[in-house]
Amino acid sequence: MSARVMVVDDVEANVRLLEAKLTIEYFDVVSCHDGLTALTLAAETQPDLILLDVMMPGMDGFETCRRLKAQAETRHIPVVLVTALDGREDKIRGLEAGADDFITKPLDDVILFARVRSLSRLKQVMDELREREENSRRMGVSTDGDRRLRAEGGRVLVVDDNEAQAKKIADQLGVEHRVTIEANADAAIKAVRGPLDLVIVNVAADSFDGLRVLALSKSGDARRAPVLAVVDPMDRARMVKALELGAADVVNRPIDPDELSARARTQIRRKRYTDFLRDKLDSSLELAVTDALTGLHNRRYMTGQLDALVNRAVHGGSSVALLVLDIDHFKLVNDGFGHDAGDEVLIEFAVRLATNVRAVDLPCRLGGEEFVVVMPGADLEDAGRVAERIRRDVASQPFRIMGGKEMLTITISIGVAATCGPHDTPELLLKRADEGVYEAKAKGRNIVIAKAA
Amino acid sequence: MSARVMVVDDVEANVRLLEAKLTIEYFDVVSCHDGLTALTLAAETQPDLILLDVMMPGMDGFETCRRLKAQAETRHIPVVLVTALDGREDKIRGLEAGADDFITKPLDDVILFARVRSLSRLKQVMDELREREENSRRMGVSTDGDRRLRAEGGRVLVVDDNEAQAKKIADQLGVEHRVTIEANADAAIKAVRGPLDLVIVNVAADSFDGLRVLALSKSGDARRAPVLAVVDPMDRARMVKALELGAADVVNRPIDPDELSARARTQIRRKRYTDFLRDKLDSSLELAVTDALTGLHNRRYMTGQLDALVNRAVHGGSSVALLVLDIDHFKLVNDGFGHDAGDEVLIEFAVRLATNVRAVDLPCRLGGEEFVVVMPGADLEDAGRVAERIRRDVASQPFRIMGGKEMLTITISIGVAATCGPHDTPELLLKRADEGVYEAKAKGRNIVIAKAA
Repeated sequence: MSARVMVVDDVEANVRLLEAKLTIEYFDVVSCHDGLTALTLAAETQPDLILLDVMMPGMDGFETCRRLKAQAETRHIPVVLVTALDGREDKIRGLEAGADDFITKPLDDVILFARVRSLSRLKQVMDELREREENSRRMGVSTDGDRRLRAEGGRVLVVDDNEAQAKKIADQLGVEHRVTIEANADAAIKAVRGPLDLVIVNVAADSFDGLRVLALSKSGDARRAPVLAVVDPMDRARMVKALELGAADVVNRPIDPDELSARARTQIRRKRYTDFLRDKLDSSLELAVTDALTGLHNRRYMTGQLDALVNRAVHGGSSVALLVLDIDHFKLVNDGFGHDAGDEVLIEFAVRLATNVRAVDLPCRLGGEEFVVVMPGADLEDAGRVAERIRRDVASQPFRIMGGKEMLTITISIGVAATCGPHDTPELLLKRADEGVYEAKAKGRNIVIAKAA
Repeated sequence: MSARVMVVDDVEANVRLLEAKLTIEYFDVVSCHDGLTALTLAAETQPDLILLDVMMPGMDGFETCRRLKAQAETRHIPVVLVTALDGREDKIRGLEAGADDFITKPLDDVILFARVRSLSRLKQVMDELREREENSRRMGVSTDGDRRLRAEGGRVLVVDDNEAQAKKIADQLGVEHRVTIEANADAAIKAVRGPLDLVIVNVAADSFDGLRVLALSKSGDARRAPVLAVVDPMDRARMVKALELGAADVVNRPIDPDELSARARTQIRRKRYTDFLRDKLDSSLELAVTDALTGLHNRRYMTGQLDALVNRAVHGGSSVALLVLDIDHFKLVNDGFGHDAGDEVLIEFAVRLATNVRAVDLPCRLGGEEFVVVMPGADLEDAGRVAERIRRDVASQPFRIMGGKEMLTITISIGVAATCGPHDTPELLLKRADEGVYEAKAKGRNIVIAKAA
């Protein structure tokens, strides 16, 4: 896969060398010589990956990385710190500054390219989600900013037949996360299908092929949990293969506990960010069919569902019933106690409505004080019984409003209709139930009128 | 990247051989021996790719492919037809049955793996989009089925310095698509940033490095247009590299015009399907902030925008004004002419409202006959002028309803408010505008009342 890579290094010769190497491998390269420029250039050019030198005059690599990860426009871009040092502290400091990985000079080309490809591949799906989310924010669907996501409390599966090493991993990560160990590969592949935030696979295991476990845990439906591969630093080929097969990150043996913690945290945080984006998109979508005040379904949803159900009913499927419910003299509540009190009544009514219908029924608010319940599989009699239960529950218990300062007795009028014959339509059904409501109002309110076709 | 691959072949030995080859490369393999089983097994196991033998007793590969592409659960899975034949007609027949590619026995492993990886990588992003879309359908946000997408009228860019070949491509594709030719690589890379449905790159060009053009057109913001690489069948290395760099498909030289057309159609259709999913998701998201009857913004949108604008105004930003508009005696329309007539009035009013506000203003329907216009940057005086213009436009031209059978004179009462001082809030602003409406109603309706703080 091709990708745009940004190179940041204060030494011109280093920039040139990296540019040359990356260009030969067909990467699209942008570069600059200091941290401050990197911040604006990254925001402008939106690279897929940043190779960032640690030792720079002025703002060093750690600080640049921290700032890249703090600004909204660049937060999602993977950062790989490049350094001459192989110091343990620097590594952990880098990972804690938000770096996604750490490579040391002189650069090993094969590992460099495997890394770059793996990180930019991981970024692809997230970009798609981020873009939809940004569109939805631009449209005003959601207005809240990014949440700071926790990196603790992850569900971690360790697949390792090396007992001592597995225990070391579990002890280290057990402080922050919930860790289970699996020494058997077949059992591990089953376990991987569960809800996990991170899978750690020893690809240098003796009793099973760790690369196969990795591959299987990245194919099919389980592929959402990131995999951290434990590799032998001497076995470059397996390390590269692990990244190729979809490992999100690798950690060398013998395992440095603090480095492991930092890498695990990065992966778990990224996994949660992706999940968060998915959930947010789905719940933004749900808003389109939800009434903002009561949380019931809205008219749009009601129309779609009713059309489908009536269509099925007239083509020989089971019947559908419909309740139209209208709060009696609702204007008096608004005029007498204000709009806020009116809203309180609507919310409390929605709660009683939702608790008195069957699990399969669809309670909806059409607007104002008008509600509808769509009842799949119900006939006129079933629906009448449910309507009567709702009517009684509303009328028998006064509504507490304004923090208990007022208790209002509320009643409702309900019209009931059910599908009937092959020529029925959603419009006719609604019309009959509406007529039921009119009759109920005419007869003095607080009653249920079922209208046969 | 790892992937789940399904192998379908009636000859057991062929299945075994492919299974062995794929397993060594760490693919997750499922297999079966006939077309009918393939249809259900593919739906169940959801592979990332299907390798489908053409010559099978009973249902052959073409028919199986056609059915896989016709059933909703498997339509999105790439299919590669495997055959002993290298016949031109079969190739085109296969592509027209919806196959994504065609490979001939004996299989060239390197090309096979490059293909499998490339197709399953392309599938990843689409899977994410499909899943969101399915969720939104399950929630009832959208109820319409899949559209049949056109594969004609595509915008195609041909990057080729071989004049005769470029002309041949353009002549063939020009029948169905709009084709432009670019013989200069630098100009091509610029052109690739435009809106395109397909880019065809000669990676065997003499005067430029075709792989670089391919790589650059798959990095950065242009990466959405699929690239079809024209390759030399003898140059396996470049073919594999082209797929690795993100080419969606390759076609051999000398180019077979009908094969080219079929491959171009497949790519353009897939591109449009992805675009369609993106658009559909975005417009589903937009529904959440849209009033279903009038198409204006809804209360949810108004609240979010008003909060942000008032917040900016009280922190030293420019002021915000607000109109609350209420149709006078709207109940009489509903009672006298029915709900449908009432809806017609609301829709016509929304049109007049939207045409009389400024481009930056946000007209919203809160529900019933109540509307709000949020006016960024406006003060009380500006807003009053706009309100007066709306009032006059509504009152002066009667509303045509019921197909012209009735003409109704409609008037509205408008309250106006604008932010004022550092302690103003959205609630206070709305309250003042609401008071304006009450006063307008009390003074006999059809007037504008601006309320200073």
